[in-house]
Amino acid sequence: MTATQPVDGVERASTGPVVARALRLLEAFSDAHPTLSLSDISRRSGVPLSTAHRLVAELEAWGALERDARGRYQVGLRLWEVGALAPRGPGLRERALPYLEDLCAVTRENVQLAVREDDEIVYVERLAGSRAVGVLTRVGGRWAMTATGVGLVLLAHAPTDVVERVLDGPFTRHTPWTLTDPTRVRQALAATRVRGYAVSERQITDDATSVAAPVHDATGEVVAALSVVAHHGRPPVSVLAPLVRTSAAGVSHALAAGRPRRRHTNPQGGRS
Amino acid sequence: MTATQPVDGVERASTGPVVARALRLLEAFSDAHPTLSLSDISRRSGVPLSTAHRLVAELEAWGALERDARGRYQVGLRLWEVGALAPRGPGLRERALPYLEDLCAVTRENVQLAVREDDEIVYVERLAGSRAVGVLTRVGGRWAMTATGVGLVLLAHAPTDVVERVLDGPFTRHTPWTLTDPTRVRQALAATRVRGYAVSERQITDDATSVAAPVHDATGEVVAALSVVAHHGRPPVSVLAPLVRTSAAGVSHALAAGRPRRRHTNPQGGRS
Repeated sequence: MTATQPVDGVERASTGPVVARALRLLEAFSDAHPTLSLSDISRRSGVPLSTAHRLVAELEAWGALERDARGRYQVGLRLWEVGALAPRGPGLRERALPYLEDLCAVTRENVQLAVREDDEIVYVERLAGSRAVGVLTRVGGRWAMTATGVGLVLLAHAPTDVVERVLDGPFTRHTPWTLTDPTRVRQALAATRVRGYAVSERQITDDATSVAAPVHDATGEVVAALSVVAHHGRPPVSVLAPLVRTSAAGVSHALAAGRPRRRHTNPQGGRS
Repeated sequence: MTATQPVDGVERASTGPVVARALRLLEAFSDAHPTLSLSDISRRSGVPLSTAHRLVAELEAWGALERDARGRYQVGLRLWEVGALAPRGPGLRERALPYLEDLCAVTRENVQLAVREDDEIVYVERLAGSRAVGVLTRVGGRWAMTATGVGLVLLAHAPTDVVERVLDGPFTRHTPWTLTDPTRVRQALAATRVRGYAVSERQITDDATSVAAPVHDATGEVVAALSVVAHHGRPPVSVLAPLVRTSAAGVSHALAAGRPRRRHTNPQGGRS
């Protein structure tokens, strides 16, 4: 993160603080706070009101923010359009979706796809099977790495500095089974690397267990993780693991096969 | 759009040009160009290389851009996360999806949901039915308003200045049936308002016709349009129109019922 020094009413001549502050305003919005007043934005972002006023006007002019019928600000459709071009988000999802759907149809359980962003995981897709156990995840939502199957897979293949930061904690305990001891997390990561899949038993909710496997890109790097979240013990891990590994391998093959052929052209020009 | 005056090497003290230029860099990326070098970004955005260099570094530091294994830039996962909060994009989609899925299951045709952005439409969701005709649309893609069913619905309920700009043309002809005469477009808009649904016959491809109906918010304003795109004449419009209108009314009721209850909390904090 770039350091910012908000100084009300004083615009710095360098681009750094201004752009960083404009982007920081966007962080004021969240799933729990999708619409905000200008003073909400200022307060939540820590950017002084007069500066926020000017930057919000800029963001609105471009379409990164828009106003609802009551005049409150919300994230604009334009930002969603640009975000839809993120290869690690919708790009990955598009190529993985057929494999996720097959896995969901066969198991009738929850199927999830996630990537690592800094020291957390972000869910890129989630399909709910017809006999699926309740889960707390959301597409675009973040979660800690050690408590989930996909997180253990991604952490098992993360750079050492990421592993050490995560193992430094803190760990949030969700159930009596949540891993909060760094030594036990290290054992889980080692087991994940040896077996080729991760098992996260009852760590988030008492009744759910996830089994996750790595997705590789063409260079062999682990770029995502795919999981099934099922009722604990039904079906057993020995049944789920080969299915999850096969699906993850399918996605890896699809990624290695290169960019998908685009199914459309946009004759109006627009964003293409 | 805010006016920008790119002057290489000279940073303006006001926030306007800097933020606008940073956002303009994002516009260099498209479905056809998802990864770009720094010089590509500079050339496609019209922002001089030295300025682009500094602004790209800012955008990368925040996560709006990221680099792939070859060092080329792409839209970052962070931007997708923020974009996922856009009420008119994923927010609308989430509430509409059960109705879209029902309509798709009943008709086994393509079902589409779109909103208006400036003088164009943007597709927010598209489901492909099992007997669906080929379509050229993409989620997040833009299209002209007069050639599609959803576009006619949204234009029929747009402010006068939008209607006049669109009717000024130009019109892109895709098939012999594409509306390119402003008088005929006006007639189609009037018919859409009177009937409560729009019909776009064979305008984009020879073999497809779409039937679309408006989605209203709690205040009665038209905020989206929902369509079925089927083989021309099979099933007839008289069969499709009541189904589409009923589904659109269902989405309207869901919107009027207020924000959906959130199904999760994010105990790790993250973006919530």
